[in-house]
Amino acid sequence: MKRGHRTGKPKGGFPRFYGRHAVTAALANPDRVVRKIWGVREVLNALDLPPVLPIVYSDVADLGRMVPADAPHQGIVAEVEALDDVWLGDLLEEGARDEAAKRPILVLDQVTDPHNVGAILRSAAAFDALGIVTQDRHAPAESGVLARAASGALEFMPWVRVVNLSRALDEIAEAGYWRIGLDGSADTTLGEAIGESRVALVLGAEGDGLRHNSIAHCDIIARLPMSPRMESLNVSNAAAIALYACMTR
Amino acid sequence: MKRGHRTGKPKGGFPRFYGRHAVTAALANPDRVVRKIWGVREVLNALDLPPVLPIVYSDVADLGRMVPADAPHQGIVAEVEALDDVWLGDLLEEGARDEAAKRPILVLDQVTDPHNVGAILRSAAAFDALGIVTQDRHAPAESGVLARAASGALEFMPWVRVVNLSRALDEIAEAGYWRIGLDGSADTTLGEAIGESRVALVLGAEGDGLRHNSIAHCDIIARLPMSPRMESLNVSNAAAIALYACMTR
Repeated sequence: MKRGHRTGKPKGGFPRFYGRHAVTAALANPDRVVRKIWGVREVLNALDLPPVLPIVYSDVADLGRMVPADAPHQGIVAEVEALDDVWLGDLLEEGARDEAAKRPILVLDQVTDPHNVGAILRSAAAFDALGIVTQDRHAPAESGVLARAASGALEFMPWVRVVNLSRALDEIAEAGYWRIGLDGSADTTLGEAIGESRVALVLGAEGDGLRHNSIAHCDIIARLPMSPRMESLNVSNAAAIALYACMTR
Repeated sequence: MKRGHRTGKPKGGFPRFYGRHAVTAALANPDRVVRKIWGVREVLNALDLPPVLPIVYSDVADLGRMVPADAPHQGIVAEVEALDDVWLGDLLEEGARDEAAKRPILVLDQVTDPHNVGAILRSAAAFDALGIVTQDRHAPAESGVLARAASGALEFMPWVRVVNLSRALDEIAEAGYWRIGLDGSADTTLGEAIGESRVALVLGAEGDGLRHNSIAHCDIIARLPMSPRMESLNVSNAAAIALYACMTR
């Protein structure tokens, strides 16, 4: 899929991915610029690294200082450039080409925790979603934590960042998607709401849930059937369930 | 539910819970011994604290040093005693009393990440599971991270720790549960495997999956219907989906 272009060094510095899975997935992605790699000798020697890539042999303690405390770096850290943006129009065109598959779109309204967004990318890939859509200003940047939670899916799941989520929801509706907002206060259950058409699943942040404006841009609001003992689920768990419900409808 | 007894100070020191939700849930639990509380004045003054409880007024920086880096303590930290053990026999009796509800049991085979086990407790409570069963030596201890991920569910979801998981699976089968092991290599899907009886859902660690011995103690092995692009889901997401599938069968 064609991607837009990002230039210059990002504000917080370049993302650092760690762990064999995240780093090898980044290396295998032709759209990903890997700037530099640090690693222990045994791990680096076992990899098929591009000859032009700057490599620094390091010890475990050095690597530990390059990543968040307790991050399981498994002997390898990579500095990368964030992927170029994917445009919503391109994503919707991709969906239109593949109409029979009815692949769902996941829309995240201010989900900011990188563990959760990473796990959601992983589930989205597992259940063959078309892509995820977030609001540019209220979504995490690419990071080692996010890449690790995504378990490779960050490299190939299209991720659209939009300025205005309501406008994006309108565009998604015009492309023929049935927009289901997940909210614990709804009367309809997700199973009842899904129907037969292509769907966009809209999930809000934990704690606050969907914002009013996002709810106003959904076609139906649905809840997961839950015990009154708990107010809500972890948002990545809710997303996984919603994707499973789409897959098995 | 009757609980066994733990005595003495735990090896790693007493667990420290943080954040308003986890701490107020611990205070509201009559089975929980809260030993001491640290907090900023505004947060402590807003709580209805038992008069016998030692309290230390602290500043935000002090609290930050008491919890893992970046842990969102929200101005309050509590040192607690871990809950007493729940016995498997008691859990199964509880299930037998409530036969119509067919509440599932979750069995975790060497799932060690406290975020995941906490999120699983939260989903288990949300979908009204009977309880979770782990192997004593290969499960996380109670901790601030786990309590936070559980979002209060740690205080009331029965958690059985057993020495021998295979023996526990046998006991669960004798009590009339259909044991479904989740494994990506299975031919049967979870939806096909669930059936009508009460079920125990058996999940393995990420990466390694279910151990052979655990598979041998299941009645059927089932997989979630997934894209070949991903090998596996995050284990807490897989657990949430399995619980949802039970709830909506």
